[in-house]
Amino acid sequence: MKKISFNELHNYYNQEIVLEGFVEKVRDLQYVQFLILKDRFGSVQVTLEKDGSLEELNKVVSDLKVDSTVKVTGKIIENEKVKLGGLEVIPTSIEITSEPKEDLPLNYRDLNGANLDTRMDYRFLDLRNEKNQLMYKVQSCFVEAMREFLYKNKFTEIHTPKLIGAASESGSEVFEVKYFKDKAYLAQSPQFYKQMAMAAGFERVFEVAPAFRAENSNTNRHATEFTSFDLEFSYIDSYEDVMDLEEDLLIAGLTKVKNEYGEDIKSKFNQDVIVPTKPFPRIKLQDLYNELNKRYGYEIPKEDIGDMNAEAEKLAARYAFEEFGHEFIFVTDFAKTKRAFYHMRDNDVPQGYDLIWKGTEITTGAQREHRYDILCKQAKEKGLGEDVKFYLDFFKYGCPPHGGFALGIDRMTMLLLGTSTLKETMFLFRGPSRLTP
Amino acid sequence: MKKISFNELHNYYNQEIVLEGFVEKVRDLQYVQFLILKDRFGSVQVTLEKDGSLEELNKVVSDLKVDSTVKVTGKIIENEKVKLGGLEVIPTSIEITSEPKEDLPLNYRDLNGANLDTRMDYRFLDLRNEKNQLMYKVQSCFVEAMREFLYKNKFTEIHTPKLIGAASESGSEVFEVKYFKDKAYLAQSPQFYKQMAMAAGFERVFEVAPAFRAENSNTNRHATEFTSFDLEFSYIDSYEDVMDLEEDLLIAGLTKVKNEYGEDIKSKFNQDVIVPTKPFPRIKLQDLYNELNKRYGYEIPKEDIGDMNAEAEKLAARYAFEEFGHEFIFVTDFAKTKRAFYHMRDNDVPQGYDLIWKGTEITTGAQREHRYDILCKQAKEKGLGEDVKFYLDFFKYGCPPHGGFALGIDRMTMLLLGTSTLKETMFLFRGPSRLTP
Repeated sequence: MKKISFNELHNYYNQEIVLEGFVEKVRDLQYVQFLILKDRFGSVQVTLEKDGSLEELNKVVSDLKVDSTVKVTGKIIENEKVKLGGLEVIPTSIEITSEPKEDLPLNYRDLNGANLDTRMDYRFLDLRNEKNQLMYKVQSCFVEAMREFLYKNKFTEIHTPKLIGAASESGSEVFEVKYFKDKAYLAQSPQFYKQMAMAAGFERVFEVAPAFRAENSNTNRHATEFTSFDLEFSYIDSYEDVMDLEEDLLIAGLTKVKNEYGEDIKSKFNQDVIVPTKPFPRIKLQDLYNELNKRYGYEIPKEDIGDMNAEAEKLAARYAFEEFGHEFIFVTDFAKTKRAFYHMRDNDVPQGYDLIWKGTEITTGAQREHRYDILCKQAKEKGLGEDVKFYLDFFKYGCPPHGGFALGIDRMTMLLLGTSTLKETMFLFRGPSRLTP
Repeated sequence: MKKISFNELHNYYNQEIVLEGFVEKVRDLQYVQFLILKDRFGSVQVTLEKDGSLEELNKVVSDLKVDSTVKVTGKIIENEKVKLGGLEVIPTSIEITSEPKEDLPLNYRDLNGANLDTRMDYRFLDLRNEKNQLMYKVQSCFVEAMREFLYKNKFTEIHTPKLIGAASESGSEVFEVKYFKDKAYLAQSPQFYKQMAMAAGFERVFEVAPAFRAENSNTNRHATEFTSFDLEFSYIDSYEDVMDLEEDLLIAGLTKVKNEYGEDIKSKFNQDVIVPTKPFPRIKLQDLYNELNKRYGYEIPKEDIGDMNAEAEKLAARYAFEEFGHEFIFVTDFAKTKRAFYHMRDNDVPQGYDLIWKGTEITTGAQREHRYDILCKQAKEKGLGEDVKFYLDFFKYGCPPHGGFALGIDRMTMLLLGTSTLKETMFLFRGPSRLTP
């Protein structure tokens, strides 16, 4: 790891060093040449006098194309007149390590108004954009901080199979795979397997992995493949424990993001990173309906009773902000008809929640039903039979009480940075009509 | 995270606490009952006198089935006569939170001689075995340590799509997915996309994610799905930089594993965790052939000339151990016909390596060819056309010199613990005839 990052150059004044980066700009003036290099941490100016002492290098720079990559050897000197960090490099050699073969089909330096499909076609250029680069640093940092938190709390990372034998939970919206002479399916979530780990006595597990949904909908919030941050843990007393853990997890994640990238996010995305306070507001669905009605005249449509919809989520966030000054709100007590069969119920009320952040649902969490007989009954009630038998078996031989939740990290990043579509947020978006590059 | 782990009980002497775990053993004697509970960190004895003072609890314990889960409230007292940590619990309440519905179909406490297929059918019980539990703690720790190392070195974690539009590198051994009215394929590796990140200026990336291979072979070392630890980084001078990084990465991983689980691994798997010293031995393929011939009379078969095979890998490890006292050895200078088209070549020699650990290849690493024209030529030479065009385009508009490698973490775990098959090592093994549970 020898490369010197461009934000560390002030540590090398008057030293001969090697700089590597993309060519951002070339200014070839009458008496001097300026070459601006860029890496993912910053920019630096290379200055060449045209006084005959660097004739060969002058020629290289004259012909140099923007977006080439170069390796420059030279001395770093302090020069307070230089805007880029008050320093410049006087080169002794310049080696071109790659160069563009033709004009770039996308002006990644200014994406305002650029066609989104073109951007996605040339995603490898689109991602050179500074805002996009920041997006992945932030996402990586956020996931790192959440993992750190879980490691500290003795969670074990597992890797569950994405190739599964049965079409899992719902049957619909599952991709089918040609599996030798047979068929397999792609897992929609690691739900069943992280619960299997509970039956196996793993106690606390998490997984960060792709999940697949064969939904033929072309919206900004749906992708056929996304990265799911899943966890599950044993020996809980109720779903309140799950909410508590999720609070701590998100606080850990957002604290690190704010510390490391808060200012960059403010300047590039105009978003404030707010570390939430504990406890997050918690409200029962019916009470929320009442508040939304009283405050905003909102009535939940008949077909959504017992559940939320996009507008109710938006208004719930507004309510949380106005009443509690909070970006997050937990909504509990959904109707059992609207929740998965594996959610534990108490007097027919599912023991779970949705977590709303900035007007969008980011998590469904719950205590799971771990008692075999009741779980079988609830599965049957939802019309689920043979396909989930393998899963029901996990609970036949003792299994601790447990719960968990999942976060979509692409969606989290979108909300964190205030971007408008997953297509921009995912490294490479996948949708019904998008499988490339 | 309220649960008190059974290895921390000595911090709670004379306090009333809540204990949760699996029932490991019940001894119901004339004057006393002993209940042994277990969690993933240890065991504890609950002691109940039969003197009439705990009559109701005595009844609960009499009927208690092994492998139930319970929640015990009680006081922890020091008792040096008790073998389990010199302490015991005097309960005031016992709640059964789950219990087995029937006899267990697998005796997970003693897996010696157990049928491997039965074990896999009942993997949720098989994983309760202490050795298996340790395996995942170790794997999680190993991956955590390697990630930590990469974060420290400013690597960004990315999540590349597993659904891809073209059958990637080879065409064979790729799973086909029904994708709405079209076809998709499952990625065999994130190779092309981590290189895309280099063209996008990400500089240093890694990914831990599933990879898929439609190989119809039923061996102990092949799975149709496995977890790949991939990384790629820019601005290298040669593949020596890649080897250097891999050394540091493995040292970071093995150091943490040794510190945290070295003793457990020794006692349960009879394996010494050895933190390797730098540099690892490095040898050219032809020189290795010569050594193996001279020392062990081994001649590489004609069809494998320019490459390694399983026996050569074993002998290479023997040579590394005898000559350098080292578990690892890098082998370089393979024949170009035996390496991927995207490996950089110097005078026709691929600029990459295989890393052998304990007689098995664990990595192929290389400097990649980042120069568009040469890369196109090398692709064409291997008969690759339209399918890789999208990939070749990544290099058309400037791309820094870069390299990288991948590790299969399941295989690493297998070698680390000296187990004999991936079927035991993977959380849930997937093979041509194994898609369940």
